[in-house]
Amino acid sequence: MSGLTPDRLSLNTATLREQWNLAQCIEGCARHGFGGIAPWRDKLQEMGVSQAARAIRDAGLRVSGLCRGGWFTASGAVDQAVIDDNRRAVDEALEIGAECLVMVVGGLPTASRDLPAAWKLVEEGLARTLDYGRETGMKIAIEPLHPMYAGDRACVNTMRQALDICDRLGPGIGCAVDVYHVWWDHELAGQIARAGKDRVMAFHICDWLVPTRDLLTDRGMMGDGVIDIPYLRGLVEAEGFDGLNEVEIFSALDWWTRDPDEVMQTIIERARTVC
Amino acid sequence: MSGLTPDRLSLNTATLREQWNLAQCIEGCARHGFGGIAPWRDKLQEMGVSQAARAIRDAGLRVSGLCRGGWFTASGAVDQAVIDDNRRAVDEALEIGAECLVMVVGGLPTASRDLPAAWKLVEEGLARTLDYGRETGMKIAIEPLHPMYAGDRACVNTMRQALDICDRLGPGIGCAVDVYHVWWDHELAGQIARAGKDRVMAFHICDWLVPTRDLLTDRGMMGDGVIDIPYLRGLVEAEGFDGLNEVEIFSALDWWTRDPDEVMQTIIERARTVC
Repeated sequence: MSGLTPDRLSLNTATLREQWNLAQCIEGCARHGFGGIAPWRDKLQEMGVSQAARAIRDAGLRVSGLCRGGWFTASGAVDQAVIDDNRRAVDEALEIGAECLVMVVGGLPTASRDLPAAWKLVEEGLARTLDYGRETGMKIAIEPLHPMYAGDRACVNTMRQALDICDRLGPGIGCAVDVYHVWWDHELAGQIARAGKDRVMAFHICDWLVPTRDLLTDRGMMGDGVIDIPYLRGLVEAEGFDGLNEVEIFSALDWWTRDPDEVMQTIIERARTVC
Repeated sequence: MSGLTPDRLSLNTATLREQWNLAQCIEGCARHGFGGIAPWRDKLQEMGVSQAARAIRDAGLRVSGLCRGGWFTASGAVDQAVIDDNRRAVDEALEIGAECLVMVVGGLPTASRDLPAAWKLVEEGLARTLDYGRETGMKIAIEPLHPMYAGDRACVNTMRQALDICDRLGPGIGCAVDVYHVWWDHELAGQIARAGKDRVMAFHICDWLVPTRDLLTDRGMMGDGVIDIPYLRGLVEAEGFDGLNEVEIFSALDWWTRDPDEVMQTIIERARTVC
């Protein structure tokens, strides 16, 4: 498989969250020839949704996803506040022309150890957000997070679990496949095939470092870790996935401390050589 | 469910690895009324296997498992050295009367990103060790490790994956269920039922801390984290598991720094109140 050219890449703004605001990310993506961008909501709101939408359009960038809806479990009930916030997320995704709204579903409620109860909250919240997504034409993409985040970030942790939910909820909902979260899974190939083109809604890349020094902010640049990215990309492309390869690297100790243009150039180089 | 009395507990020696050698662990378990012990091989060899076996027998302790065989992937081939080492582990397990030999199967070979190849090595190594386990009457228990260890410690990461291997290899091999590694898995209840009494060979307890500050050495004391231990214990006991509850806590920042008798007393108290 040949490597990726920059027009096949999308910059998830978390990758440069310490260096660039959204306007700078948009400008940087255009200047480096990226095909798209995937904003986080905090940066989007800081810039203003309408202004961001215009700037992204003017730059000719696709929006591979909006990060993120979800967080259904925090209060221990799917209350109106979380439903409203997810509706706003759908609206924002629509306004910037995002290809999907990425859902980080939430972990255990505060002081709870009841994982089955959390799963129930998550499915209820997803169902209600999906209703609005169908009304408005926005795709909802569950991002299964690595099992090390089950307690505090997302209690949907495998493609199988996410697809079981998708099967129950019907059309309009699928998965965001992030190699960092799913690379270890012995069922991955089968579950990506099960998902198929319609339900592989996004593909995120970075790398798993050995050793990993922090559970949250020590992701690696592609090529610096142990994930076989070409193999995983081959799996989603075999199903017909033709979206952008979204680069999402949380890296407090390394990439967040570097010159942002150096980071962009490194991404381009690694996409060409190791992805 | 009522809590656990000390006679239902086994001390995995890793819990006090910085404070006590094996002779001290044996004496401490007897003095605190524990039902058993689970030595690591380094401590066992340091004491001498025959002497340890005698001391454990004299103390009236069961041996819930020997930690650990496995590590089949390190060199990139299942060579004679690793097979011999696993045969020695079986012999040691027999000599101390262990109820099973716990297998930590190994992660990716050095400089490899080929997980399917690692899985193949693991299955070959397990099959060959199982042959010897059957000859000698020692049960082989695959310990699925948390997915965050797939790169460097074990590329078998779920009960489903372990049981798929067991199904292929036949009788004499099963699982060590450690709550720390498997608590997040939405399939856990079903897979423990699938395992059944014969294949749930060990049950390890500790807790998952939120936040977790280190991937390897920040496990929690039961009750300090988010794992619903009584629920998980109920799942294995519903299948007929009647082995000991083995306490295995890696805790560089906390429990390894404390007075060992305080740790033992805390384990006893927590076993009674939150397990």
